[in-house]
Amino acid sequence: MRELTVAIDAMGGDHAPEVVVDGVVDYLKRDSSLKRISIALVGREKEIRRELKRLGSKENPRIKIINAHEAVSMREHFFSYWKRRKETSIQKALDLVAKGRADAMISVGNTGAVMAMASDVLGNLPLVRRPALSLSIPTLKGRTLLMDVGASAESNPINLAQYALMGRAFLQAVEGIENPKIALMNIGEEPLKGNELAKNTHNLLQKLDINFIGNIEGQDAVLGEADLIVTDGFTGNVTIKVAEGVADTIYSLLKREVASSWMGRLGFFLIKRALKRVWRQLDYSEYGGALLLGVNGVVVIGHGRSNARAVSSAIELAGRFVNDNVLGKITQEISKLEGAFKELQYV
Amino acid sequence: MRELTVAIDAMGGDHAPEVVVDGVVDYLKRDSSLKRISIALVGREKEIRRELKRLGSKENPRIKIINAHEAVSMREHFFSYWKRRKETSIQKALDLVAKGRADAMISVGNTGAVMAMASDVLGNLPLVRRPALSLSIPTLKGRTLLMDVGASAESNPINLAQYALMGRAFLQAVEGIENPKIALMNIGEEPLKGNELAKNTHNLLQKLDINFIGNIEGQDAVLGEADLIVTDGFTGNVTIKVAEGVADTIYSLLKREVASSWMGRLGFFLIKRALKRVWRQLDYSEYGGALLLGVNGVVVIGHGRSNARAVSSAIELAGRFVNDNVLGKITQEISKLEGAFKELQYV
Repeated sequence: MRELTVAIDAMGGDHAPEVVVDGVVDYLKRDSSLKRISIALVGREKEIRRELKRLGSKENPRIKIINAHEAVSMREHFFSYWKRRKETSIQKALDLVAKGRADAMISVGNTGAVMAMASDVLGNLPLVRRPALSLSIPTLKGRTLLMDVGASAESNPINLAQYALMGRAFLQAVEGIENPKIALMNIGEEPLKGNELAKNTHNLLQKLDINFIGNIEGQDAVLGEADLIVTDGFTGNVTIKVAEGVADTIYSLLKREVASSWMGRLGFFLIKRALKRVWRQLDYSEYGGALLLGVNGVVVIGHGRSNARAVSSAIELAGRFVNDNVLGKITQEISKLEGAFKELQYV
Repeated sequence: MRELTVAIDAMGGDHAPEVVVDGVVDYLKRDSSLKRISIALVGREKEIRRELKRLGSKENPRIKIINAHEAVSMREHFFSYWKRRKETSIQKALDLVAKGRADAMISVGNTGAVMAMASDVLGNLPLVRRPALSLSIPTLKGRTLLMDVGASAESNPINLAQYALMGRAFLQAVEGIENPKIALMNIGEEPLKGNELAKNTHNLLQKLDINFIGNIEGQDAVLGEADLIVTDGFTGNVTIKVAEGVADTIYSLLKREVASSWMGRLGFFLIKRALKRVWRQLDYSEYGGALLLGVNGVVVIGHGRSNARAVSSAIELAGRFVNDNVLGKITQEISKLEGAFKELQYV
């Protein structure tokens, strides 16, 4: 395997650049035997150096620092950052990918900003109108790809149908699932249920030559009945955040409940390993992030609340996507679907 | 306390009329000391009698059967049931409320049908454009009222602002919360985040004289930071169903994990009571259902997958709403807000 370079937005996330640098150093330590991935840390050089020093990290040939004056904050709006985008750590990291100096880009920062700049700098894959943030969510049976989990706040039926085609290509090319079961997130199982977007999308998905298994409701989404669930970015984002909140809440409630008796405390101690295994399955930081599917480059967006472990997992994930030639395979799969994509333009 | 009558749609839900009749009989057994609530079971008399016989229930003066030939199935669409609505168990149960022969109506059936017929038969409260299904969801700190969880698939900013006013009135009148903290479900904390509906609603809520604490994201919604969270019925419905699915999935995963070792099995046994307490807090069947807030009558809609326990809890809940004079209090609170409601008409 050739040596890869992953460009990382060092200034993104709730605790940048500390957590990002932590994650990079952590990754390089764990990955020392393979020496596969080099890191381009993009951001305010001084701050990055300070963090590296804090971690006692000596000069490492696998870390390069690319200076960028500007950072986009988590809460910043398009109108505020767009003008100065060229000097931001996000765009400079994307530039490295565009110029072929990096193989993938990672940010745990402002999702809207990464999405907008990635589309602008890298462009979209041929035929793709709008990229989708695609997250592999844990289910009872394994994992299900959920698209979009927040690249766009607003979508139309054609966007959602394109997500289905892109996600299908991804699952075929990367996961080797021959004919992925595709479902539409909705508030009822029947075709006529839901809001206008859901009803019109249902109608459109039925016309495509895919394995469309119909509407799926929230409680069934996490049972793993579908390989791919498409939804608009607003609903998808609420879905993953509610799921995260419920898992956290259950853990806290359980801890509180067991504390009231010695039996509870002992029992909790005995199942601690099992609990850890379950929560690790649900923990975003183990998976590292979501792929921005549809842009012409490998872009992984992590959780804004990412910890070092999540950043480290994101590097691993990005490396895997590059090594698996995800981009090439998807482009090829999409080209096979040219007819279907084009048909969507005229609906 | 005077004797109340609750009218129940015996034909609603995935397992009607069995589960509904089970729930009624269960309720009356538990409530025998108080003898407060009488039940009007509305549906196909023959089937209801068969179920009562199966349960060995003798003639009970507290159960009245009101015959209705027609039932609306869970998957049925408006166009299909609307014409024959007058003969359905849903409408006949609502008629009893309209005529003052029952104090409340319960259905665990087709939400859309109950909502449409309730608005038609009972009318909406003065000034209210659209009722909202209001569910008290469990959080880390207690409970939060979520509106709308599925009365309407589509909403506009005025609807959501009205939900805020109605929910506020409910929490003040029924829960005694003086100045409820009201939040808007969104995919970011900043005012400019979200889809058009969320952005415009945020703008509108800021103008109202309420304790609007801003946007809230999915993971924070279940922490209990707000007393009331408003959202459109599509998002609200997905939210409660995802939460339910995640809780179920965690339980199944945990059971599977502990089974692999004697330590795990012993530990699971020791914390079984704590687990039960936690899951009972999360279990919809303990709460019985959601109040259809905004119609001129007490209407409680339960989960389509309701078991007998849930039906029994729904009766209890409906009884409490009537005894607390929820309807009178809300009408009064809303009349105080007449200015705010009317202002909304001109936005």
